[in-house]
Amino acid sequence: MERLLNERVITSLTNPTVKAIRALHARKGRDESGLFLAEGLKFIGEALDLDRRPATLLVGQDARPHPLLDRAVKATTANGGEIITVNRAILEKVSRKENPQTVLGVFQQVFTPLDKINPRSSPAWVALEQVRDPGNLGTIIRTCDAAGAGGVILIDDCCDPYSVEAVRATMGSVFAVSVTKTTTDAFLTWRETWPGSVIGTRLDATHDYRAAPVEHPALILMGNEQAGLTDRLAAACDVNVKIPMRGRADSLNLAIATGIMVYAVTEGS
Amino acid sequence: MERLLNERVITSLTNPTVKAIRALHARKGRDESGLFLAEGLKFIGEALDLDRRPATLLVGQDARPHPLLDRAVKATTANGGEIITVNRAILEKVSRKENPQTVLGVFQQVFTPLDKINPRSSPAWVALEQVRDPGNLGTIIRTCDAAGAGGVILIDDCCDPYSVEAVRATMGSVFAVSVTKTTTDAFLTWRETWPGSVIGTRLDATHDYRAAPVEHPALILMGNEQAGLTDRLAAACDVNVKIPMRGRADSLNLAIATGIMVYAVTEGS
Repeated sequence: MERLLNERVITSLTNPTVKAIRALHARKGRDESGLFLAEGLKFIGEALDLDRRPATLLVGQDARPHPLLDRAVKATTANGGEIITVNRAILEKVSRKENPQTVLGVFQQVFTPLDKINPRSSPAWVALEQVRDPGNLGTIIRTCDAAGAGGVILIDDCCDPYSVEAVRATMGSVFAVSVTKTTTDAFLTWRETWPGSVIGTRLDATHDYRAAPVEHPALILMGNEQAGLTDRLAAACDVNVKIPMRGRADSLNLAIATGIMVYAVTEGS
Repeated sequence: MERLLNERVITSLTNPTVKAIRALHARKGRDESGLFLAEGLKFIGEALDLDRRPATLLVGQDARPHPLLDRAVKATTANGGEIITVNRAILEKVSRKENPQTVLGVFQQVFTPLDKINPRSSPAWVALEQVRDPGNLGTIIRTCDAAGAGGVILIDDCCDPYSVEAVRATMGSVFAVSVTKTTTDAFLTWRETWPGSVIGTRLDATHDYRAAPVEHPALILMGNEQAGLTDRLAAACDVNVKIPMRGRADSLNLAIATGIMVYAVTEGS
């Protein structure tokens, strides 16, 4: 196997680089380093297409040859990043999975400041208040990408979009849409400048979600999994809508409700 | 605490009843017993409302008093079932959670035979081909309930709707909609008698999901998470539709795609 100058082989689980990457499973490790872990060539290819380059690439001994991997190695090297060849035991430990991906990438987290969002660049955006479940958040990011929505705005105390679980659920879309963190106060000030409709989703709303008038770009507000959208944020919306509950279930899963809303609002956009 | 005649206290993790209930985490344990585990009073209240009674009720020492629990105790007793008071350590072991629900119910699994489905009892039904993820399946069951769809039909080798993870994701809707298991061959024969539209969802379809004519009751077919709907099942549909992918994501999460389809098809129904 050809080996590059900046490439090394690690076989020890106690190696400091391996330990630093494993620390990305914890929010503390991610917050302190500003990095996150993306697993598999699909994710890494998506990143490269969007000009996001790995800070570190962990390559399993069985991963080569693969054209996308060669591209990732070149991009990482050009970025001043490191290529590390590891055995399967290390891949398992780093990914905490029995059947790990053979290529893992470490990337810089990117958060778009609220005032850098260009509302008119997309027909719809999604703001999430205190979302708790990383699987929901990752799935919502994937759905935004699929629907052509611009990204997610995380209001107040949300789960981490760069957790391993959230990133996995994005299926690579974490590189494709913007992610913003803000507070309710900052959001409410910024919302005043929004050029289109601001649409809240609440179970106690009277407007059906299909009947509300929508002016693009639309900003869709979704509340927390347990409590729904707070009164304060609901009051700041142009309209609050509900998705009908026709059976015995009293609510939808948050990612499902968001998916239905995003597709309803972007239809024909 | 008042104690009924058929009520006993168990404090040992090696007690055979506790071991039998813990075995419900494994498919083998569920298949052999025909039982499943539902956690929390919300689930048990939903079951009682639909006249489904626990075979066994595990009650944490801190759970009483609660009117719904009293009702559950009576219903279990009337059903010839057993009430077992347990400590927190047993609740944790049985639920495999650090913060377990204080009431756990063991119920009979119910599968509706294909020929007992009454298509006209609901505007829409969902057939899933080889669905693999229990979280997706449970979320789809919850979505069917919310949208007023009749239930799910599981074609070929699917994950178990009565796994602990799937049941949790239903949020109680597992009691509210019908669940059917079948094979592709049996499904294709039965499909011939379907009185409304049979609508497949495929990424390579040409019809937009909003543009296809729908005659109720509609039967929505969704494929497997990785492979999508097989050619054989797609060919048996009246129409195949696609949900547009407008960004970089090449697909939606299965539960999201199903949610969008079910709400689109039941709109105005």
